[in-house]
Amino acid sequence: MKDFNFYAPTEVAFGADAEKQIATLAATHGASKVLIHYGGKSALKSGLIDEIKQTLTQAGIGYAELGGVVPNPRLSKVYEGIGLCRSEGVDFILAVGGGSVIDSAKTIASGVPYEGDVWDFFTKPLSPKQALPIGVVLTIPAAGSEMSNGCVITKEEGWLKRSFDNNVLRPRFAVMNPLRTFTLPPYQTACGVTDIMMHTMERYFSHDDDMLFTDAVAEALMRTVKDCGMRVLQEPDNYQLRAQIMWAGSWAHNDLTGCGTTGDWATHMTEHELSAIYDVAHGAGLAALWPHWATYVLDENPTRFAQFAVNVMGVTNDFKHPRQTAVEGIRAMCRYYHEIGMPVSIPELIGRKATDEEIEQMATKCTLGKTITVGQLKALSYDDVANIYRLANK
Amino acid sequence: MKDFNFYAPTEVAFGADAEKQIATLAATHGASKVLIHYGGKSALKSGLIDEIKQTLTQAGIGYAELGGVVPNPRLSKVYEGIGLCRSEGVDFILAVGGGSVIDSAKTIASGVPYEGDVWDFFTKPLSPKQALPIGVVLTIPAAGSEMSNGCVITKEEGWLKRSFDNNVLRPRFAVMNPLRTFTLPPYQTACGVTDIMMHTMERYFSHDDDMLFTDAVAEALMRTVKDCGMRVLQEPDNYQLRAQIMWAGSWAHNDLTGCGTTGDWATHMTEHELSAIYDVAHGAGLAALWPHWATYVLDENPTRFAQFAVNVMGVTNDFKHPRQTAVEGIRAMCRYYHEIGMPVSIPELIGRKATDEEIEQMATKCTLGKTITVGQLKALSYDDVANIYRLANK
Repeated sequence: MKDFNFYAPTEVAFGADAEKQIATLAATHGASKVLIHYGGKSALKSGLIDEIKQTLTQAGIGYAELGGVVPNPRLSKVYEGIGLCRSEGVDFILAVGGGSVIDSAKTIASGVPYEGDVWDFFTKPLSPKQALPIGVVLTIPAAGSEMSNGCVITKEEGWLKRSFDNNVLRPRFAVMNPLRTFTLPPYQTACGVTDIMMHTMERYFSHDDDMLFTDAVAEALMRTVKDCGMRVLQEPDNYQLRAQIMWAGSWAHNDLTGCGTTGDWATHMTEHELSAIYDVAHGAGLAALWPHWATYVLDENPTRFAQFAVNVMGVTNDFKHPRQTAVEGIRAMCRYYHEIGMPVSIPELIGRKATDEEIEQMATKCTLGKTITVGQLKALSYDDVANIYRLANK
Repeated sequence: MKDFNFYAPTEVAFGADAEKQIATLAATHGASKVLIHYGGKSALKSGLIDEIKQTLTQAGIGYAELGGVVPNPRLSKVYEGIGLCRSEGVDFILAVGGGSVIDSAKTIASGVPYEGDVWDFFTKPLSPKQALPIGVVLTIPAAGSEMSNGCVITKEEGWLKRSFDNNVLRPRFAVMNPLRTFTLPPYQTACGVTDIMMHTMERYFSHDDDMLFTDAVAEALMRTVKDCGMRVLQEPDNYQLRAQIMWAGSWAHNDLTGCGTTGDWATHMTEHELSAIYDVAHGAGLAALWPHWATYVLDENPTRFAQFAVNVMGVTNDFKHPRQTAVEGIRAMCRYYHEIGMPVSIPELIGRKATDEEIEQMATKCTLGKTITVGQLKALSYDDVANIYRLANK
């Protein structure tokens, strides 16, 4: 187990009445004028935005608002938000939605007190020294951004999807009401389940060992999300299933399941290029790539994949043949993805094969013009990344 | 799953070099003059206290010091600390040790800005509105106080051992170096393992259900600590085993394993009376009482005890006879306690039987003069508490 630091200071209010705490939490964490930041029509139509305005007003907290965040959130919206916060004297950002809205809010928050271009944080060895405080009202469990220190933004010019992380981005509070997730369509629910599991899988697959506690918690989380993810598609109004997925989603990505590991993250990095150019759902993109990444890197650490197969996927352990056990685990994951309606290839994801040019373009962008490797379990060169896209393209 | 709030803002530095971060963490969290608070000779002899003084001095942070905290920490030492902090202008308390030192520090921290008697917080429906910030250098994994919001103090007059909790008590940071725990004697190690498991067991045994994620994490934690606890007694210098126990100890008691449950806490409440009058180690007292509490309340929720037996203790599930499975789980725990050198009765704990008068006195104090019940799975009256002490006294 490697040395590590852990810091997850987000105050969580969880349950069917959680929204009642929004104003108190905002006031406790120093809000006097809030930017209410959200996505499309669902937050408006559900009445949630009006409810939040009302509760803030009653508490004597002012607000501005900025909707229109789209999936794979855009840098142009971030610039708009930074301008609005400055002109309106906003001192707190309340993100109402899922990962896209939260990541947009985090980027705005780090951009407001910064004199340069906020895109610098995504592209230069430069960290924000401060950021406006952020709160979250979570409506889509998937990204785990409500307790994480990271954010991902897409720059339209060149469709560059980039990320950075810093502890100043961790939300001060997160309000989570599982009832808000009942209306998520099956596809979006399955994308969330895939993303949640993958946040812990990215941390799980590494060369590190002796992480008995981290492994036990990680496997417990992955098993729970896998089982509840399957069941909730049959029972979309089951509060308890929605609640498990929502709560586990935060813990999949707040770093607990990565304590003592280096993690890998190649599937996320390669997926970002997929969703940047095809504008597909991140979770679906992960499912389309992971089995091929796993097959490609399996021999770097077959016993680790065997452990995943047995302890997470419920594969019977073939003790004498750990590699075969590992392969069965990848197959079991493919079956699972199909059962919850996720693709396991690029053609299943985008409805056609990627062209050779697209694959070369994605592999080039992913390796920053063939200058870096991607992932830790196996450091993937440009050729490796292109090979994985090709494997996924069959 | 019940609604809940979760808040564990403690910044953790974990590993063989963790102490190097003490001064930076103290400065980040606003320390300019620190009270270094510790127990007996081991912290001095190991050189840890000198090392801390040096690192603070180099960072331009002043300090005062107060040692001499004893197990089952005393109110008189707290008063001494409050006086010292006020006269020295201390603005941050650094607890160096285990649960006793941390709890003493927490009580001092809440007492300094309070005009009345700090004992009020333990006995009246009164909460501290503020407290000095606290940091921890953990040397004994057991109490989980380094990330928790609670503290336990003993008032010498009447040997009253009482607790209270409040989020202002949560340490701002905790420095954890597993190497510091190599020298813990086997008995103290086993007491720690027992206490750690019990913090999650207290949350686990309840009438609540539908806590799939909380259960999965709780069971993962208890299994890991159980297994590592057994092994570490054979391999006291095994860093990885010490590390698992130390890290799991924080998570057993920072509330993650209680999210959505009411918990029980009767074993802790009844044990506090044991250690108050016999001055025994808290962990050993828990082991002496738990099997008898479990047997006494088993029929309130036999399937819960069966789940514990199978998922934590590794008992084979007798599906048709869950109560029998549950009983086997309690027996397995008794065997485990014996294997790690813990007592499973009061005579094994104190070397003689408790007298009838002592049992009556403990049951009376535990139920605040027969005015309250204790525990949630079964609300235990004075008679119930006395019966459990008597069962444990055979």
